[in-house]
Amino acid sequence: MPVVIETITSQVLKGNPLGDPHERRVPIYLPPDYERGERRYPVVYFLAGFSNGGVYLLGESLWAETLPQRVDRLVRSGVVRPLIVVMPDCTTRFGGSQYINSAATGRYADHLVDELIAYVDGRYRTLADREHRVVMGRSSGGYGASVLAMRHPDRFGLAVDHAGDKYFELCYRADIPAAVAALAAYDRSAARFLEGFPHPAAERGRHWFALVNLLAMASCYSPNPSAALGFDLPFDEYTAELRSDVWARWLAHDPVELVGAHADALRALRLYYLDCGRWDEHHLQYGARIYARRLQALGVAHTYEEFDGGHLHAGHRFDVSLRAVSAALP
Amino acid sequence: MPVVIETITSQVLKGNPLGDPHERRVPIYLPPDYERGERRYPVVYFLAGFSNGGVYLLGESLWAETLPQRVDRLVRSGVVRPLIVVMPDCTTRFGGSQYINSAATGRYADHLVDELIAYVDGRYRTLADREHRVVMGRSSGGYGASVLAMRHPDRFGLAVDHAGDKYFELCYRADIPAAVAALAAYDRSAARFLEGFPHPAAERGRHWFALVNLLAMASCYSPNPSAALGFDLPFDEYTAELRSDVWARWLAHDPVELVGAHADALRALRLYYLDCGRWDEHHLQYGARIYARRLQALGVAHTYEEFDGGHLHAGHRFDVSLRAVSAALP
Amino acid sequence: MPVVIETITSQVLKGNPLGDPHERRVPIYLPPDYERGERRYPVVYFLAGFSNGGVYLLGESLWAETLPQRVDRLVRSGVVRPLIVVMPDCTTRFGGSQYINSAATGRYADHLVDELIAYVDGRYRTLADREHRVVMGRSSGGYGASVLAMRHPDRFGLAVDHAGDKYFELCYRADIPAAVAALAAYDRSAARFLEGFPHPAAERGRHWFALVNLLAMASCYSPNPSAALGFDLPFDEYTAELRSDVWARWLAHDPVELVGAHADALRALRLYYLDCGRWDEHHLQYGARIYARRLQALGVAHTYEEFDGGHLHAGHRFDVSLRAVSAALP
Amino acid sequence: MPVVIETITSQVLKGNPLGDPHERRVPIYLPPDYERGERRYPVVYFLAGFSNGGVYLLGESLWAETLPQRVDRLVRSGVVRPLIVVMPDCTTRFGGSQYINSAATGRYADHLVDELIAYVDGRYRTLADREHRVVMGRSSGGYGASVLAMRHPDRFGLAVDHAGDKYFELCYRADIPAAVAALAAYDRSAARFLEGFPHPAAERGRHWFALVNLLAMASCYSPNPSAALGFDLPFDEYTAELRSDVWARWLAHDPVELVGAHADALRALRLYYLDCGRWDEHHLQYGARIYARRLQALGVAHTYEEFDGGHLHAGHRFDVSLRAVSAALP
Repeated sequence: MPVVIETITSQVLKGNPLGDPHERRVPIYLPPDYERGERRYPVVYFLAGFSNGGVYLLGESLWAETLPQRVDRLVRSGVVRPLIVVMPDCTTRFGGSQYINSAATGRYADHLVDELIAYVDGRYRTLADREHRVVMGRSSGGYGASVLAMRHPDRFGLAVDHAGDKYFELCYRADIPAAVAALAAYDRSAARFLEGFPHPAAERGRHWFALVNLLAMASCYSPNPSAALGFDLPFDEYTAELRSDVWARWLAHDPVELVGAHADALRALRLYYLDCGRWDEHHLQYGARIYARRLQALGVAHTYEEFDGGHLHAGHRFDVSLRAVSAALP
Repeated sequence: MPVVIETITSQVLKGNPLGDPHERRVPIYLPPDYERGERRYPVVYFLAGFSNGGVYLLGESLWAETLPQRVDRLVRSGVVRPLIVVMPDCTTRFGGSQYINSAATGRYADHLVDELIAYVDGRYRTLADREHRVVMGRSSGGYGASVLAMRHPDRFGLAVDHAGDKYFELCYRADIPAAVAALAAYDRSAARFLEGFPHPAAERGRHWFALVNLLAMASCYSPNPSAALGFDLPFDEYTAELRSDVWARWLAHDPVELVGAHADALRALRLYYLDCGRWDEHHLQYGARIYARRLQALGVAHTYEEFDGGHLHAGHRFDVSLRAVSAALP
Repeated sequence: MPVVIETITSQVLKGNPLGDPHERRVPIYLPPDYERGERRYPVVYFLAGFSNGGVYLLGESLWAETLPQRVDRLVRSGVVRPLIVVMPDCTTRFGGSQYINSAATGRYADHLVDELIAYVDGRYRTLADREHRVVMGRSSGGYGASVLAMRHPDRFGLAVDHAGDKYFELCYRADIPAAVAALAAYDRSAARFLEGFPHPAAERGRHWFALVNLLAMASCYSPNPSAALGFDLPFDEYTAELRSDVWARWLAHDPVELVGAHADALRALRLYYLDCGRWDEHHLQYGARIYARRLQALGVAHTYEEFDGGHLHAGHRFDVSLRAVSAALP
Repeated sequence: MPVVIETITSQVLKGNPLGDPHERRVPIYLPPDYERGERRYPVVYFLAGFSNGGVYLLGESLWAETLPQRVDRLVRSGVVRPLIVVMPDCTTRFGGSQYINSAATGRYADHLVDELIAYVDGRYRTLADREHRVVMGRSSGGYGASVLAMRHPDRFGLAVDHAGDKYFELCYRADIPAAVAALAAYDRSAARFLEGFPHPAAERGRHWFALVNLLAMASCYSPNPSAALGFDLPFDEYTAELRSDVWARWLAHDPVELVGAHADALRALRLYYLDCGRWDEHHLQYGARIYARRLQALGVAHTYEEFDGGHLHAGHRFDVSLRAVSAALP
């Protein structure tokens, strides 16, 4: 199974505020017949979930396929037509960039849309137009897929959003008490918690993930170059009270809020596939329902499916969406 | 230990919208020397938590004192001065009235402030002025104590609020997903769920309580005589999306919002004692912290304590507050 | 609804090892027509669960009937024939006696079988024979019902066991790690934990109940007059290792072990009704299944039902069993 | 960082009962100066936990080092002396072999001890004697490390056991109810559950892991060539009752039971390092405590440490043990 790992030097990520690398390893899956012929292929940009992406997608395990293993099985069995899959690395030291530009993390959307697509189209036999270019992701990557589809209709003609972050009023807000509880052990100071993060030699407390996730989201949604951390937190570190001005900046990034202004871009998609588990642990099914209602009201064609499951171990849903992608490609 | 159970006929609760009884049994604890003398006593109105109150406070158990047992021990041991404790019954079929008036439930605040105080002062040897009248409660009763203290400074000179409902943005809002999940089994219909409520012969599902609690709060905070249920729900039954207009009506009842307009009343208190468990399961410690900050900013003298504990099994905190009450009485 | 609370002076509980009272308040429910006539009635001895019994069964609450309220509704509606219900108090300071004799707690079985039945039959118009005497209980009281039916076939002709303790290998053993975890805060010393128990003024830690429950069961199943506590613990306080000699003494009380030797007594029952919730939090459904298999293999007629539910809020099952009792009485 | 992935053809695994591959990919970490010189190095055989091992140990992630990354950091920083680390693959389709021989899975101990050591010593510049050979693992691999150290004192002179499976009476037995609950959805049939296992396209139910783990352990501890599955389950699929004969076969593999007969082998170790998290989710701290007591009673020198943590995210403990290994090597 041919997977090439490219190392890409980003100009836009050079000198990024978190000091994260501007050289990124990007695995590229090539279909079985790529080497043998002259064909050109559609390209799927697969955006991984929070703290995942790039080569982290290649770790094998006993009971689950990696993404390229899954795609390869689907292509070889003829269920999905041959295509190229690119696995960008848009992680930051706090977890991930949400695939957007932020003054606190770097220009990850620009990296993906301006640099990575050009790089791939320049080096591989792609069908280098929007009609054959798919943006697909799950969780934070589902968020990225929907938002990139909204903002770059010239680049992407198909979008797949599995359990993407939506309706921040629930999916993030519900984690605030846990994050405040986690901060109690650090003198209520995010700065102290982040000293030496991610502390590889230390135990992770009970609410570790909730705190890390909200800090990372703050770096994406409420950057503030003049703040000590480079971003503002949307809640008080002791009382958990929402800071409504900061929160408003978060909401400006919520797909549920964004969709109205980008309906034309979404209407132009050949395929807009979304799903979510009926018991998503982060309440993302509710955001998905709200969003699907908005799409319907705006006349945006889409498929929304709920399945019996939660947020994890849902890789089998990619079989469903890739089949839909394959059928929708020209 | 003398506890008299009075049956009080309320005029203001007659014909209440939920068809709840307007005759209420109200236990009244009398101090050990009441029978022997001519003394007059301060009165504590003890407001129980959600779905509790009146004779429900009298149920004995192996490992915990009832409220009158506790008070009697404190009085007999000399730790607390002799006083009368009245245990109003402001429950509704959905659980409780929050001790406020509502077009959907009835005029429970009026019942308490206008009818019950007069009844007690008319029949018992009370010190019948605000300086000797205490409003005290826990959880929903803590809410009632704070709100009644705000609105009726002429009646209450001391207030005690244990883990009262505050900062609805957390304490109620966090329950919305669970309530929506519970509604799924009832065709997403609160009306269907409430048919024959409380279903004594039926199993309670996992999220039963969250749903009941939010329905009851809606009956208190967002009554609507023209709605089928008599009240509006602040969230969509399928998407869990907040209905911001209804929610605004809830927030108008949040102590965190109310406190600014009632600072004078609270400043006039002889004692304002509040506490909360550091690990309150309903996040009430955060509301308490926000509220305490507001009180401080407004110059309202108060005591706020956090203790190592959660929302339940915290009866030992009444020892602390009753001692403070005893010391603060004239 | 006539409920008489008798205060019964027990001879066999006088000077019991835990210093628990030998005067017990025992509520007795009398059917609606008791006062009017001369009829004699069947008697149900209702054995409450752990830490419950006697007057603790009378505490009213908003959404659930008390036991006498429930029986009264069933009798008045004609669903169940008129009968007397006796509510023994066999609690100890550690929670309960399991309705058996123990050198560490007292002779609670003797109290019930020898003293209480005679007392009731002597003062009330009962049908004073085994054919009309029912032993019924839930949880620890279900245990008591089954074991008393085994050992006293001359006294009880019908038995009802709701979610009774069975298959100690699961129902108790699974709690050992939690109990050991709870002991860590007390220098691994049960003696220290029990100082001043039940500590009414103190917070209950997370595993409080698991520890109390196992200590109480040890007082019932593995008494040892020469041990400091009066009983032996079946596990090591630090390693959680089972003490197999003590554990064997526990198992000698397990209905699953006892049933073989008492099959004749159980075969003589007019009715043996058992049930359990399919999701019992204490794994009691498994013990019930094992036990039902044993009964079947031994040719003991019985009814065993599982229902969709857990260990709590299952009072509606009494409607089912009391109907069966009513039908099975001569 | 040089990691060579060898593909090793096993003779003893050829035709194994589960049809698992007998060619295994085995990553081998070589120290930084390996290529440059002629030195020989001590060898650590690192045994991964359940369902892990071999190349699965190489999956990179954002916030944690892989095992070779960790070792390389420790070696390059001079904290640990240069050594070779071999990462055997002893997984089976059910998860893992526990690094023992079983008629139901294959001869994994033989593969490791007879084939793999010879292969490595034959191809790499190892210090090919027991004094320089370490067996180390965590969880199921910790089990493997302790058991291989007991049975092959001629091969291993140092052993490291992080949170290894011990005291089966707790660590496995506590999972039986969950496994039985999971089987309910498969007509109580392990055979049906295992059809097409691991069902990559299907949702994992709540108790999926508990069931898989117990089935895998049964394949290791209670093989039975004449049984339909190739092994016996130690519990009844409906009642959860322990099958004591099968369970006895499991216990014969419990380190707590084995240690007495192998004390000499363990006494001969240069280093026996064990640890466990104080809040291990599988109760392994209790097994570790029992085992440490046994070692002490038997006069086996060892180090046992407990740390503030659970079963996962404990890779930082390898820093501690590898330092101890480095110091204990001759």
